[in-house]
Amino acid sequence: MSDVSSAKLIEEYRGLSPAEFFYRNREIAGFSNPTRALYQTVRELVENALDATELYGIRPSIELRISLDEQDPSRVTVEVEDNGVGIPREVVPFVFGRVFYGSKYTLRQSRGVFGLGIKMAVLYAQITTGKAIYVRSSTLDAKDVYEYEIAIDINRNMPVIVSERVYRKRRRWHGTVVRLTIEGNWPSAKRRVEEYVRRTALIAPYAEIRLKAPDLELHFPRSTRSMPEPPREGKPHPYGVDLELLKSLLSSSDGSATLKEFLVSTFDGMGESTVSRFLEWAELPGDLPLKKLTVEQVEELARKMREYPEWRRPRSVTLSPLGERLLLEGVRKILNPEFASAVTRRPSSYSGHPFIIEVALAYGGDVPVVEKPLLYRFANKIPLLYDEGADVARKVVDSIDWSNYKVKFPAPLAVVVHLCSTKVPFKGVGKEAIADVPEIERELTNAVREAARRLRRHISRVERMLEAAKRRVEIGKYIPEVARALSEIVRGDSRAFEEALREMLERRVVAVGEVRVS
Amino acid sequence: MSDVSSAKLIEEYRGLSPAEFFYRNREIAGFSNPTRALYQTVRELVENALDATELYGIRPSIELRISLDEQDPSRVTVEVEDNGVGIPREVVPFVFGRVFYGSKYTLRQSRGVFGLGIKMAVLYAQITTGKAIYVRSSTLDAKDVYEYEIAIDINRNMPVIVSERVYRKRRRWHGTVVRLTIEGNWPSAKRRVEEYVRRTALIAPYAEIRLKAPDLELHFPRSTRSMPEPPREGKPHPYGVDLELLKSLLSSSDGSATLKEFLVSTFDGMGESTVSRFLEWAELPGDLPLKKLTVEQVEELARKMREYPEWRRPRSVTLSPLGERLLLEGVRKILNPEFASAVTRRPSSYSGHPFIIEVALAYGGDVPVVEKPLLYRFANKIPLLYDEGADVARKVVDSIDWSNYKVKFPAPLAVVVHLCSTKVPFKGVGKEAIADVPEIERELTNAVREAARRLRRHISRVERMLEAAKRRVEIGKYIPEVARALSEIVRGDSRAFEEALREMLERRVVAVGEVRVS
Repeated sequence: MSDVSSAKLIEEYRGLSPAEFFYRNREIAGFSNPTRALYQTVRELVENALDATELYGIRPSIELRISLDEQDPSRVTVEVEDNGVGIPREVVPFVFGRVFYGSKYTLRQSRGVFGLGIKMAVLYAQITTGKAIYVRSSTLDAKDVYEYEIAIDINRNMPVIVSERVYRKRRRWHGTVVRLTIEGNWPSAKRRVEEYVRRTALIAPYAEIRLKAPDLELHFPRSTRSMPEPPREGKPHPYGVDLELLKSLLSSSDGSATLKEFLVSTFDGMGESTVSRFLEWAELPGDLPLKKLTVEQVEELARKMREYPEWRRPRSVTLSPLGERLLLEGVRKILNPEFASAVTRRPSSYSGHPFIIEVALAYGGDVPVVEKPLLYRFANKIPLLYDEGADVARKVVDSIDWSNYKVKFPAPLAVVVHLCSTKVPFKGVGKEAIADVPEIERELTNAVREAARRLRRHISRVERMLEAAKRRVEIGKYIPEVARALSEIVRGDSRAFEEALREMLERRVVAVGEVRVS
Repeated sequence: MSDVSSAKLIEEYRGLSPAEFFYRNREIAGFSNPTRALYQTVRELVENALDATELYGIRPSIELRISLDEQDPSRVTVEVEDNGVGIPREVVPFVFGRVFYGSKYTLRQSRGVFGLGIKMAVLYAQITTGKAIYVRSSTLDAKDVYEYEIAIDINRNMPVIVSERVYRKRRRWHGTVVRLTIEGNWPSAKRRVEEYVRRTALIAPYAEIRLKAPDLELHFPRSTRSMPEPPREGKPHPYGVDLELLKSLLSSSDGSATLKEFLVSTFDGMGESTVSRFLEWAELPGDLPLKKLTVEQVEELARKMREYPEWRRPRSVTLSPLGERLLLEGVRKILNPEFASAVTRRPSSYSGHPFIIEVALAYGGDVPVVEKPLLYRFANKIPLLYDEGADVARKVVDSIDWSNYKVKFPAPLAVVVHLCSTKVPFKGVGKEAIADVPEIERELTNAVREAARRLRRHISRVERMLEAAKRRVEIGKYIPEVARALSEIVRGDSRAFEEALREMLERRVVAVGEVRVS
């Protein structure tokens, strides 16, 4: 122990580049084995492709091609082509070759958020097959198409351009093609990849998706031309803004502006009157110029903003939920149920991030009979297939007493859950499970309950129809006798009475089936 | 869509500092709500304290103090003091104020690995209460004690020294005190924190741990003075070394050395003869100087190193397993079972990282009766409490057919699983679940089976004892009659016969109880 000098201890410390960090800890991004790594690579490429189209109002046409090396089938090549806006030539090397470089964190819903996923795939290829990533891209206004092969200098976290080629654009093509060769286990990843593509088609029914693999071809044509409004960039919501964000917003504001002016111009949904009411409630000096605020006042402001009970709900311009109609469209396309209901909640927020919960229930039809509800999870239109047990949605769905909604398990019930947010609180950079943020848990519960009430009405109606059908058969048995008795009493035609009675019975049963019971 | 020019697209991209990345994605490090954040903060501080002692052969004495703000009980202060080697003054600001700065990634088992945990706690404090971290430390050979308050400049990922104070060391103190004030929910985190400390005492029975909280005091004294040998720094194991690591090892070697010399000096367990056999099998030119290796030959080398079936197992100097005796000690101290068995497997490796699996089974006694085995998970002596469903150990334990081992559920069975490795493949930076790396899954299965076979012997013995006791009662009933009959035939004393017969019966039953059945 006596040899543990400070000088020796100092040698044990050092800094690390972000690329080195993730190279060493690739499991945290889902690259833990050749099966999972292949699945994760497919995801990263497909999600980028969808973002490059949808976010700009382009209806996605995505083609995913998977092929195996003939000599060594554990070398798998994954290629994805999209018809998106393309990547500007100047940033291509960084987008693929520098960890933590990517689309800005703006207050707007998108699939990619970490600036990390594709780089992890590039690192994984580099580690396992040594192959650089191939990229071909062209933006809408570019005159050229450019091709790159890019590797990552792990110690410096900088791109290495292995090759570069530019040529005149002949046809009016725009978009991006990306190709990676990794070590992968296709036979065991196949089912997951297939399911991933199927679920993507569910949540994006306006997208055309093709998958070509050695022993699998799938084609999901567009089943609708209508697409949700793309999300726009927005302002933070005042509820739950953290101290650090508040400080940075303050320091980038004009110091001579007053606190009131700052609040009105910086946050979502803050009119003059809302701000005045808040400042009065919070006992803060709205006329004070920002530069005169003390540290204590800033802390007080953050606390009061978190505690104020009367913020308006955030606006939804930053979000792009599917909407109840499209969600039903997707559910019917993929699950083909007897009954479906969909709920899109109004926006809420957590920690300053607006979010919307959408839930659909699919019941009967092709939905398999299960012991507890099948769960289809989506976050910003990304299907989540792994780590269901750690997800807040599983927790919520399992906490519901389904017998209150007339569902008796085993039952053919699937629950589709979609969280849209400018910031999805994933538990890991592999983007698989959503953390149990209290605000999200609450909204989820409300949404599932709302959809479940509609399901209960459906099940009640079906029960009544069955009941009515049963009674019709029962009552029908007595009609000839009653008709005969009537004909004797009022001296009419027994057959006419019988017909009239049957017609009355049918009308009544149909009315019951249509909704009401008297 | 026509307004999506390249110039506009470029603006959407940018880089991010690691501090900013984790500030924005704090959920991935376990800081998702005030309950979990408090638990996570405790963990990070306690694990650093244990590393600062154990890794240097010091028996840990750790004190954990938790207190609530009187005005606002959601402001929680966590303080941890250890008797470790201290942190050299020069690096203190970076250790606490720069993400990805920390103990070097050496090939040696330790709790901390990400250079991230404590910085996440600092960021979370900064976000929620605005308080800087307080640190007091002194190394063994330092003449001073130094105190710091440190914050993180998020955009630059650099420490901000808020205050600094140095004074002469009076008594011979060495170690570190760290104090953080965060937003936390103590009432709901309490049970988890308590369980965490309890399990830490299980896996480190040689540590003294105190916990003082508003309504909870725990003291786990050292129950043994013997401590496992601290891990030493080692060389990578040749099996599964990835291409990137191989390239970096090659480029930091002397280019005029031959391939054979390189392999002998760089990797674990590579004697001359092992290397010669490998090179012959791989058909690679051992006499070639490194600088003459082609890219293809390097790729071939990596592939062959992965495929070679005859590597020796890695040595265990880099690892510090508890060992069967200490593991049993810990299990008995905390779980107090009727029967316990422990297995420490020999070292294996995955992707060049050596690892050892230890498993203990605790049966009966104070172990609660459960529907499926209770699981206590540990990785490099860290108790893992969350995300059990996503952990490879849960998968393995659930895949075992326990009836083969005579366990019929509900049963009082707990499984303790400990993975030691120079690199634990956690699924997240929150360090909660271990990824399903095939090599680890296999070793885990073997270890659980080995321990379960011992449990089966125990259960069989108990069954036999019960069976024997039953037979003794049965047979006992006939002894007087047999004795009487004998005494009539050979004309002896009936009571003497009866005594002799009873003695025979007892001997036989004891023999059965002791193990054997004839």
